[in-house]
Amino acid sequence: MRLLLISNSTNAGEAYLEYPKRQIADFLGGVRQVAFVPYAAVTFSYDDYLTKVQARFSELGIDVRSVHRESDPARMLSQAEAIVVGGGNTFALVKAMQEQGLLRVIRERVPEGVPYVGWSAGSNVACPTICTTNDMPIVEPATFTAAGLVPFQINPHYTDAHPDGHAGETREQRLLEYVEANPCMTVAGLREGCILRVENGRIELIGERPMRIFRKGQAPYEVRPGDDLNFLLD
Amino acid sequence: MRLLLISNSTNAGEAYLEYPKRQIADFLGGVRQVAFVPYAAVTFSYDDYLTKVQARFSELGIDVRSVHRESDPARMLSQAEAIVVGGGNTFALVKAMQEQGLLRVIRERVPEGVPYVGWSAGSNVACPTICTTNDMPIVEPATFTAAGLVPFQINPHYTDAHPDGHAGETREQRLLEYVEANPCMTVAGLREGCILRVENGRIELIGERPMRIFRKGQAPYEVRPGDDLNFLLD
Repeated sequence: MRLLLISNSTNAGEAYLEYPKRQIADFLGGVRQVAFVPYAAVTFSYDDYLTKVQARFSELGIDVRSVHRESDPARMLSQAEAIVVGGGNTFALVKAMQEQGLLRVIRERVPEGVPYVGWSAGSNVACPTICTTNDMPIVEPATFTAAGLVPFQINPHYTDAHPDGHAGETREQRLLEYVEANPCMTVAGLREGCILRVENGRIELIGERPMRIFRKGQAPYEVRPGDDLNFLLD
Repeated sequence: MRLLLISNSTNAGEAYLEYPKRQIADFLGGVRQVAFVPYAAVTFSYDDYLTKVQARFSELGIDVRSVHRESDPARMLSQAEAIVVGGGNTFALVKAMQEQGLLRVIRERVPEGVPYVGWSAGSNVACPTICTTNDMPIVEPATFTAAGLVPFQINPHYTDAHPDGHAGETREQRLLEYVEANPCMTVAGLREGCILRVENGRIELIGERPMRIFRKGQAPYEVRPGDDLNFLLD
């Protein structure tokens, strides 16, 4: 299984997909064409999304074809060299993927070795469920069950920040609620600018910031690039 | 129908339920006992939640009885003088309410005149769906359909703030996604410290901050306490 799970497409103030570009190029190696899933887009069109992603992938010499332009999206994914799932709204994404049978194809093909790249919502759907998304549930999917390519949950865009004078929950409080309600699961709080790379049964944290681990009954703690994180795959 | 829909239990730096206390007292008038729904609590016990709420309601001379201590919670609600639904995690709340048949009772009794008070998640469940909650979907309810006591959606804890250097969506972006995906719905962004009071077919905004209205095809705009908001009930 080969996965590149990216926290966010774009760091504040940078160009779209700028920071993860070299990691994507290295991960995809000789791949010349990818199948792209744009269904997390809500306030802009799938065509516009494809154009944005194609512009960046062109710099890597990679052709991007989007499932939304195919008459049989599941068939296209089942024949893809690599699968790329973009960010946006996780609920919109997973609902469309369920309706088109794309999660089923991903569950079959990625364990066979087809590389998977996701960012933000695209990293959420690689997890067992979408229960640790930050997104608003603007549409109702058939189920919260996702692709389950890894056995733990990712919280992308993990942040320690909280607006002054705001009484809503912090991100840490939300994830402590998740582990309380799901006592057998581990959550990786993946800060912006960070990436998890899974390959040959091993997992590596790439980036310049630590990742925060949440498990029921343990105080949350930090792990760093270079640390052995393979416990996440147990 | 009589509803008091409160954005948040507690303003930052204040005591629990301090700011809405007088409004609750005024709204509940001669009520001497309320039925309380504590199921939004996740990281603290329902007993602790009841104790906290009872402490504040005792100052108003109101006895609080919680459904979690009853052998037949739906029956208790069906006989209540008034219904109070507390905040916490909206998904945990609505899941338990669905499992115990409490939404069905609320849909019957509140239109008959039983007063309903909710804050945060308790305001979300008064809406047609929970699709405009800010909470993490830590558990999966049977459906996103909620009590539908009002025909519009509330976004409680509405905020204009966004952490510096963070690339995730602003609250406004999330709600623009919602109205894009749900073009017939209106969302009321209810800032902290604010309350909506519905009575005799009229709705009033109470508080010191404006409320932000979201509808597909219109730029979001502000309404203020004293404005005619009855279009929300159309």
